Amino acid sequence: MARDPARTAGQILEQVRARQPKVHCITNTVAETFTANVLLAAGGIPSMTTHPAEVPAFVQSAGGLLINLGTPDEERKAATLLALDAASEANVPWVMDPVLIDRSPLRLERAREIAGRGPAVVRGNAGEMDALAGAGMTSTVRATSGEVDVVELGSRQASIRNGHHWMAQVTAMGCAMSALIAAFCAVHDDAFEAAAGALLVTGVSGQLAAAEAHGPGSFVPQFLDTLAGLDADNLAANADCDEKEIS
Amino acid sequence: MARDPARTAGQILEQVRARQPKVHCITNTVAETFTANVLLAAGGIPSMTTHPAEVPAFVQSAGGLLINLGTPDEERKAATLLALDAASEANVPWVMDPVLIDRSPLRLERAREIAGRGPAVVRGNAGEMDALAGAGMTSTVRATSGEVDVVELGSRQASIRNGHHWMAQVTAMGCAMSALIAAFCAVHDDAFEAAAGALLVTGVSGQLAAAEAHGPGSFVPQFLDTLAGLDADNLAANADCDEKEIS
Amino acid sequence: MARDPARTAGQILEQVRARQPKVHCITNTVAETFTANVLLAAGGIPSMTTHPAEVPAFVQSAGGLLINLGTPDEERKAATLLALDAASEANVPWVMDPVLIDRSPLRLERAREIAGRGPAVVRGNAGEMDALAGAGMTSTVRATSGEVDVVELGSRQASIRNGHHWMAQVTAMGCAMSALIAAFCAVHDDAFEAAAGALLVTGVSGQLAAAEAHGPGSFVPQFLDTLAGLDADNLAANADCDEKEIS
Repeated sequence: MARDPARTAGQILEQVRARQPKVHCITNTVAETFTANVLLAAGGIPSMTTHPAEVPAFVQSAGGLLINLGTPDEERKAATLLALDAASEANVPWVMDPVLIDRSPLRLERAREIAGRGPAVVRGNAGEMDALAGAGMTSTVRATSGEVDVVELGSRQASIRNGHHWMAQVTAMGCAMSALIAAFCAVHDDAFEAAAGALLVTGVSGQLAAAEAHGPGSFVPQFLDTLAGLDADNLAANADCDEKEIS
Repeated sequence: MARDPARTAGQILEQVRARQPKVHCITNTVAETFTANVLLAAGGIPSMTTHPAEVPAFVQSAGGLLINLGTPDEERKAATLLALDAASEANVPWVMDPVLIDRSPLRLERAREIAGRGPAVVRGNAGEMDALAGAGMTSTVRATSGEVDVVELGSRQASIRNGHHWMAQVTAMGCAMSALIAAFCAVHDDAFEAAAGALLVTGVSGQLAAAEAHGPGSFVPQFLDTLAGLDADNLAANADCDEKEIS
Repeated sequence: MARDPARTAGQILEQVRARQPKVHCITNTVAETFTANVLLAAGGIPSMTTHPAEVPAFVQSAGGLLINLGTPDEERKAATLLALDAASEANVPWVMDPVLIDRSPLRLERAREIAGRGPAVVRGNAGEMDALAGAGMTSTVRATSGEVDVVELGSRQASIRNGHHWMAQVTAMGCAMSALIAAFCAVHDDAFEAAAGALLVTGVSGQLAAAEAHGPGSFVPQFLDTLAGLDADNLAANADCDEKEIS
């Protein structure tokens, strides 16, 4: 019998609230504030430092790590390498968000360099994910955001049809989703279920929030309210997703 | 017969929505997120990188460029020069926002250095615009924000009396207006009409949003909602502006 | 007879609105935008530059200075030293916010280095304030945020029981409170009353805002609206605080 992905997602969300995982984010300057507020609304504890003297200890004490390739400056490049070393030592799962690698050879090169370091999950839009074809990562969960989100690992595939078009009119919404995946990975060992769960929680929150909002501006506080208040029953009642084995 | 500036503004706004111009913004750290959300609400596609290896390609593929002089660090200084070279090559119109040049000799010097590179539009408050007197730019549209916004080019002058005082209580509102001017320039060749149109759209959105909001906090999401939903008829019905020839 | 701390706070808030003090903030990247909006809502005028060529003049023309130890990069380190020199010359009161010094030896070292420069106020949570034990600062007001905020100077002690748990789910809320203390210090010589007043204004605004909001997302615009509209009578009617002499 197939798992019920919405029930699994609800259980992981409850774990995030109960255990309040620290999530260290090396992310772009546009996304930092919204990403922190999304993590806080879900129950996680964000940190954002990129200082080389601080990154290792913050990562080692975190439950999850996000490497977002926006703002590809030298400080973040160095911080990323230190963070990946620390994550490897302390066995902290990490998520890569390859922001706009399809528009920047520099970012694409960095993405390929760190792809071999074994991210638990990569999340991007179709163009970004296509740019990573051939980068290996056979044991990495691939999460492709779009009108339908698709999460893949080997023969496992989940599809999520929740969401709302206003999500694309809020800057850093995708970046925040990647951070939430890191929070879910922090409390749940199966990275496929963690990624699918975080995208389902985001999509359902977005859909419910849009029903109460009046445009992409009021959508933002409503999304945070909905995410903070979402419970497993509400999630299950509104989920439009399925999981299957592909050959 | 005089043009109807509100009708022209409505047409440019519809062009932004239809053509979704990319707008590259080199802007200050405080303004980045709100600026991106304003561009998205209007229908544009923002990018914000300041990395020297990325700036030329992002600018060349953009329809408009914003150079905002807040956060005058070395990276943004170098990025600005690269961006202006790329804009010149690819014929991308650019907007200068001389943030606080009246309080900083450093910024004033930078503003004067790039003034000769031919911005399509300069937008600032009265103090900032006064500081630019004598900087040449005879073919540059001058947009001065205040209780009444005044847009000038040669003998053409437009006055816009829409807006609300809460706009001055939201950080980066002026910066975002400058970015919107760049989006309007991306789809409309007459920079005078583009600047006046963007300020009119902003002013009417602010005025309508203030009528629904309860203070400078709720004003922000309401402003984005209103901007995202504004249509040409609503704009024309609420516009309080005129255009004239001065001798 | 004991002072009424709520009445004093209301008077200082009215002074901030009347005099609109400039407050220069050297603060972390996550906090910049929200901090600016909180200062604007209260009636202050924020500036945020960290450029060494600009910091001295901005500080000298300001009424208050915030040094926030988040984002401990080299530029902010140099800017901090220049800012403290300028503040000392121009007699500008300054507030230290020791963000996460209990999780970072680097930040703790910096906090101890500048502690001797005589901050008017230090504000942090219990862990951060404990980490500063033994750092001297006998003439510095110590403001410890928590479920009950405690403000101390010598034998004076104020306790503030207003607030709401959503304040802890908004990133940079504490950082913004520290900036507001700097604004209060700018218009009121007694730093103990300024610190207690700013925390009371924040706590009451948070409590009243939470009653109107539906979660940590809608809480943010509501908080800014409430802060912008708060008057002395409303503050006094809702204040839950006391001040006493301890032996």
